Amino acid sequence: MSLFLEVVSVSEAVEAVRRIAPPPGYEEVPLEDALHRVLARDVAADIDIPGFDRSTVDGYAVAAAETTGASEAIPAMLQCQGRVGMGSVDAGAISPGSCRYVPTGGALPGGTDAAVMIEHAEQIGDEILVHRPVAPGENVVFRGEDFKAGEMALARGRILSPRDIGVAAAVGSDRVSVVTRPKIGIISTGNELVPVVETPGPGEVRDANSYLAGAFVTERGCHPVYFGIVRDDRTVLRGAVASALDQCDAVLVSGGSSKDERDNTAAVIAELGEVLVHGIALAPGKPTIIGTARGKPVIGLPGHPASAYVVLVAIVDHLLAAMLDTAVSRRTVRARLKQNVPSARGREDYVRVSLRNGEATPVFGKSGLLNTLVQSEGLVRVPASSEGLEVGEKVEVILW
Amino acid sequence: MSLFLEVVSVSEAVEAVRRIAPPPGYEEVPLEDALHRVLARDVAADIDIPGFDRSTVDGYAVAAAETTGASEAIPAMLQCQGRVGMGSVDAGAISPGSCRYVPTGGALPGGTDAAVMIEHAEQIGDEILVHRPVAPGENVVFRGEDFKAGEMALARGRILSPRDIGVAAAVGSDRVSVVTRPKIGIISTGNELVPVVETPGPGEVRDANSYLAGAFVTERGCHPVYFGIVRDDRTVLRGAVASALDQCDAVLVSGGSSKDERDNTAAVIAELGEVLVHGIALAPGKPTIIGTARGKPVIGLPGHPASAYVVLVAIVDHLLAAMLDTAVSRRTVRARLKQNVPSARGREDYVRVSLRNGEATPVFGKSGLLNTLVQSEGLVRVPASSEGLEVGEKVEVILW
Repeated sequence: MSLFLEVVSVSEAVEAVRRIAPPPGYEEVPLEDALHRVLARDVAADIDIPGFDRSTVDGYAVAAAETTGASEAIPAMLQCQGRVGMGSVDAGAISPGSCRYVPTGGALPGGTDAAVMIEHAEQIGDEILVHRPVAPGENVVFRGEDFKAGEMALARGRILSPRDIGVAAAVGSDRVSVVTRPKIGIISTGNELVPVVETPGPGEVRDANSYLAGAFVTERGCHPVYFGIVRDDRTVLRGAVASALDQCDAVLVSGGSSKDERDNTAAVIAELGEVLVHGIALAPGKPTIIGTARGKPVIGLPGHPASAYVVLVAIVDHLLAAMLDTAVSRRTVRARLKQNVPSARGREDYVRVSLRNGEATPVFGKSGLLNTLVQSEGLVRVPASSEGLEVGEKVEVILW
Repeated sequence: MSLFLEVVSVSEAVEAVRRIAPPPGYEEVPLEDALHRVLARDVAADIDIPGFDRSTVDGYAVAAAETTGASEAIPAMLQCQGRVGMGSVDAGAISPGSCRYVPTGGALPGGTDAAVMIEHAEQIGDEILVHRPVAPGENVVFRGEDFKAGEMALARGRILSPRDIGVAAAVGSDRVSVVTRPKIGIISTGNELVPVVETPGPGEVRDANSYLAGAFVTERGCHPVYFGIVRDDRTVLRGAVASALDQCDAVLVSGGSSKDERDNTAAVIAELGEVLVHGIALAPGKPTIIGTARGKPVIGLPGHPASAYVVLVAIVDHLLAAMLDTAVSRRTVRARLKQNVPSARGREDYVRVSLRNGEATPVFGKSGLLNTLVQSEGLVRVPASSEGLEVGEKVEVILW
């Protein structure tokens, strides 16, 4: 066991977590519970959607050809043959020279291929005067035009939006197959940590990381399982990690602010499995550990919440996306940098920025401050190949 | 009762829904259940955070003044007085000319005001050679520097992010006061509608709107309450709306694709309360109805899912935000328009667009097609004052 591994690049670290991600599981859920879940199997239309030629306006179903040349001055004159009812298909086709009233969503009778908007027609007794010509298919959705029977409506891998849920309903999927939410074990280590409900004594701080990591994995579609605070003791930590491995699909061990704790986390991973990465060329977030045990990923996060969060965004997000069989979905905005950002070549820096009027202002001050988590709106990535970014430069801000 | 009201502008409609939004309720929830909830009361730090002067590095706690002028050639020499343990405050202050080993997160002993990184120091027996000077406060977070006792850490109205949850934990809020999730009653009307589990017969379509609206209000932080499909019958619809008003804080009646159904919805709202808006200068979405009954908003949405969704985004979102006592939080991106978008002056158009490489391509084709909901990534708003947008123009895309 060597704990003195090379510091790896962010892309190598991302590669590593993607490689060790356990394969996703699948389950069927009712459609009303499927919002924001990852679709595991394509959703196809069971029948033609719509199942019949349908008017998209209130008006008159016509044979388009019979309106050719119609105008205000010389309207087309059609005989009105009754009304189409909603939710039924009119038995009789219309005869040449005729039309039929059709409400929005109503089925076009046989012999018609377009609808004239009621605003463009005038009823005089049984006669309808059409003031504008319509083209075949105008104001109509044809049978199967939305989706043909068997056609894919939603592709697997999508994170289901409200619109997707609506479309799944329309094509008859009242249950959908989605990726099971991975269970992520969350452990905080450190002798200085006390639970949130306690008032920290001298030298103590509250365990913010359990909540931070728990909320992060929840937002990404996973189930957090909390294993609480573990004191800086290798045997106790090994027990906690083993127990988390029993119950979960992956484990995040946050803490290790001090070198002793970091060594413990790496040592425990090495005892239970293998340390793959110990140190990433990433600031903040360098002392991150990536390992596996019992075929499951175990990640050691830095102890400070602000650093831990950068690692969650820069590295762990990719692990969770791989476990969920989806792409990392990241909201970004372009902004103009308001200040120079110095950086060291060979290290990927994530600089917290606040956004206002399209301008990104680096939240400098001490990176060890928690309040930078709420006073910034996102992160600007300074690539390892760069020595910094210049004021006025256009940058991509990862909204975090 | 007049059903022939003027068509109002989108901004007037937004004003109207904001005015009729019932006041928000409040509840306390455990912090771990507070993700994405709207914070109802400021969260303040209960004590100074951190509660002690804290090192942000592994290294040596020093009096900064004693390192002045230190260099590789002429290092400052300090006597090492033991080690600071994690989670405790070292009893003894250090004496002049001395330093103490301190781990990251450890408490600074009395007599010190900075920390020298271990990389910049060298231990020779009991002597520590410091190769670089440190300024007072360097590599240290002082007591209360993050948050002073009583200082606001999170302002009410915030939608709690994972980072906010972490900060709330750090400042001791294991429970937070949040806005109660409004209950939104959802009714679909129309003789053509069948439940998702059924195969539509001739002239019938499945009720996609209940799912669409339910998922939308869920995403916005509300509870949907489903009242199913109501046939096109005024008495039955009145009963359903009355029952939804009994159980919910607001009611969405979707459907009314045909004029008869729209008239029914407006008539029922007028019987139970008051119709405020009947028609909005909005495309798609013109036949939207805004009313109140028993002091609660009742909104009539267009029957077609694609139109209904535009109204949810353009109008209902503002109602829900007001009920939740928060701002409408909308993700937007700037993009270059790939095609001209014609529009009528006096009407606000919402054009579905697909996004690729910073370019927004209008998803034209028939607006009555459901598949436009999944083939577009957002909406471009064409203001009522405009006659259209030109190819190459920079536009803001509302990611929907």
